[in-house]
Amino acid sequence: MSVHLDHLLSDNAKALKKSAIRELLKLTAKPEIISFAGGLPNPKTFPIEDVKRISDEVLESQGEKILQYSTTEGDHEFREVLCSWLGEEGIKVKPENVQITTASQQGLDLVSRVFLNPGDTCIVGLPTYLGFLQATNSVRAKPVGIPLDDQGIKTDIIEDEIDRLISEQKKPKFIYVIPDFQNPAGVTISLDRRKKLIEIAKKYEILIVEDSPYRKLRYSGKTLPTIYSLDDSGEHVITLFTFSKIFLPGFRLGWMIGSKDIIEKIVMAKQGMDLCTPIFNQTIAKEYIKQDLIKARIEKNIDMYSKRKDIMLESLEKYMPKIEGLTWTKPEGGLFLWVTLPEAMNADRMFYNAIEQNVAYVVGSAFFCNGKGQNTMRLNFSYPSEEQIRTGIQRLANVVENDWKKIEQGNMNNTPLTP
Amino acid sequence: MSVHLDHLLSDNAKALKKSAIRELLKLTAKPEIISFAGGLPNPKTFPIEDVKRISDEVLESQGEKILQYSTTEGDHEFREVLCSWLGEEGIKVKPENVQITTASQQGLDLVSRVFLNPGDTCIVGLPTYLGFLQATNSVRAKPVGIPLDDQGIKTDIIEDEIDRLISEQKKPKFIYVIPDFQNPAGVTISLDRRKKLIEIAKKYEILIVEDSPYRKLRYSGKTLPTIYSLDDSGEHVITLFTFSKIFLPGFRLGWMIGSKDIIEKIVMAKQGMDLCTPIFNQTIAKEYIKQDLIKARIEKNIDMYSKRKDIMLESLEKYMPKIEGLTWTKPEGGLFLWVTLPEAMNADRMFYNAIEQNVAYVVGSAFFCNGKGQNTMRLNFSYPSEEQIRTGIQRLANVVENDWKKIEQGNMNNTPLTP
Repeated sequence: MSVHLDHLLSDNAKALKKSAIRELLKLTAKPEIISFAGGLPNPKTFPIEDVKRISDEVLESQGEKILQYSTTEGDHEFREVLCSWLGEEGIKVKPENVQITTASQQGLDLVSRVFLNPGDTCIVGLPTYLGFLQATNSVRAKPVGIPLDDQGIKTDIIEDEIDRLISEQKKPKFIYVIPDFQNPAGVTISLDRRKKLIEIAKKYEILIVEDSPYRKLRYSGKTLPTIYSLDDSGEHVITLFTFSKIFLPGFRLGWMIGSKDIIEKIVMAKQGMDLCTPIFNQTIAKEYIKQDLIKARIEKNIDMYSKRKDIMLESLEKYMPKIEGLTWTKPEGGLFLWVTLPEAMNADRMFYNAIEQNVAYVVGSAFFCNGKGQNTMRLNFSYPSEEQIRTGIQRLANVVENDWKKIEQGNMNNTPLTP
Repeated sequence: MSVHLDHLLSDNAKALKKSAIRELLKLTAKPEIISFAGGLPNPKTFPIEDVKRISDEVLESQGEKILQYSTTEGDHEFREVLCSWLGEEGIKVKPENVQITTASQQGLDLVSRVFLNPGDTCIVGLPTYLGFLQATNSVRAKPVGIPLDDQGIKTDIIEDEIDRLISEQKKPKFIYVIPDFQNPAGVTISLDRRKKLIEIAKKYEILIVEDSPYRKLRYSGKTLPTIYSLDDSGEHVITLFTFSKIFLPGFRLGWMIGSKDIIEKIVMAKQGMDLCTPIFNQTIAKEYIKQDLIKARIEKNIDMYSKRKDIMLESLEKYMPKIEGLTWTKPEGGLFLWVTLPEAMNADRMFYNAIEQNVAYVVGSAFFCNGKGQNTMRLNFSYPSEEQIRTGIQRLANVVENDWKKIEQGNMNNTPLTP
């Protein structure tokens, strides 16, 4: 008489898998381990005093309003404030083009639910953000991978891939990209390729989903326009933003922009999902922008992270063995860099050696949806301290060197990861 | 070259409709209108000073932690606190049985996504909560209605209905109920029927989804055990709770309980939806319970709402015309009561007359998924002031009386609602 869950679960739920990464991350939680595995902003950047002051102010002046239910679209004045902030960098939108989200992950979920049927395809640069793969997996859609190079997603092969998919009756619904300092690879899509993406979207009458969590965290080089602002049609791009990396993640606050028609559908979908995003949190973030604090905050984040990124690059340069095929990206912003090992090496397997040496990374294969990437890893430089970065990279370099030596000596075959 | 959204939308998104209620509610926003249409808690019940003080305390003592990302399941200590609070009324659960949600609507969305394929059925008492119908609609599932009486859902006919559905290869996945002071009807499921529901769930190996937003707001009568606590198997019931009605809605905080296996699936699903519910908000609610403030707060809510419920009942008694077939429920708790008009009357059509007379309600038909309920309406008594309740019911009584007179005079046929 007991419940057989398998008879009751939806097909989508049956397809949900425990995140392998989540299980691996549990191994990295010991205090002696220096972890480059997380993707967390540094808590030292959180403006605790400002949050406290603003929280007091808004509770005092408008407590009854901000502790009540709110509209699904999000607070109207908040959306206006965001529009004028976006306007400063040439993105022209009105409140009707803006949906406040319970952070970017909800934006990814909304996009997946609103556009993807089971079996539907979308184009994605590989490696790509794990949370996007989770969102598409939850509707059993099939992301189709396109390789990246140091200019971002290889737009020259997208059209062939779309033509191939069309010939199989699997025309993609959209192209998903993280144009600036991509997670996990740290690369940025060049201006030409941004334009090319718009061209492709227009040609095939599909959408671009532009995920933009790191855009404001640029440490060097010139800011490139968003893909959204390059689309003169105003209807081919949906862009997701979040406060998680520039203000704080614990509020779960983000916003997405798109054509009025798209946002209308998004609002309908969100209404059944959580009715509205906490207006209390919205109001504090709104005031933080209105009081002109966010720009200085972003500057401080840039100072801290940029320095840590440099230290990580210096340490890699200094400690990593000189092996052919061992390279890493040199990101102009964001939180991550991406290490590629020689083809013969396996970062999935090496992970356990790293843990033994008290250093952790994320296995790069987690960011692929095609079973590849076993010789890659993602390193985060925003969370660990400067000293931890130096020590941790030294440890990691030793792990890599020992692994390589064993491979050279033929003592280790390239076996796949066993959990 | 423009985007044809219809080619891009998922089948689920195509099925999303603009909420008729939402459009009607817009008409009720004028200040001269006394609205019984909302479902809002009274903002005078919000503990603004306590929220301010606790917010300051927790930002000071653990700001870096509570502004950071958190776990998908929800803060562990918060779940422990909820377990011991639930324990006080005989619900035995461990943190592994608890999922923190971005309020109850997310719980309904999770349940819909995890259990319902397009076309799948579930059993639901009618009228029922609109947000549940929205959540099931977003996965194109088909709720099957069972009538209510003053003891709640008519359990004596559920089995026949399930047998019928099984014979059509449409066995329902679960039975959805709001056992205490149901929204919208205000009725409570009797103890016998609660037990019967468990019996049915066991017999057919299906689940009960027990939505419990109002449980703590009991104004008279004896508290009945939750269906969850009546299930000795510990695996047939999922119960959803929320802070929206007993603390504040603007935090978007709720929790759901179920067997370990079910919660594990729920966690996987939620991870792709919003990663986690704001830990900042979780921590404030946790402290509010730990500081033993929630019980006194609930008492105050009960005082205020119970008085307003009585005033509404008195006013209905005093002002409503004595017409055969005009009745209303006398709820023992919650926020709503339910008016049934004679069959010949149409509350959908009468709504516009009411608006003209500066009083508003929700058309009862919105809470049906079978096209019925045109002669019903939902009245909210938590939000309007005592004076507004007296005046508003007087206005509504005039509207009803005039409408009835016209019907008696044969001047008005029972035409359906035109928007």
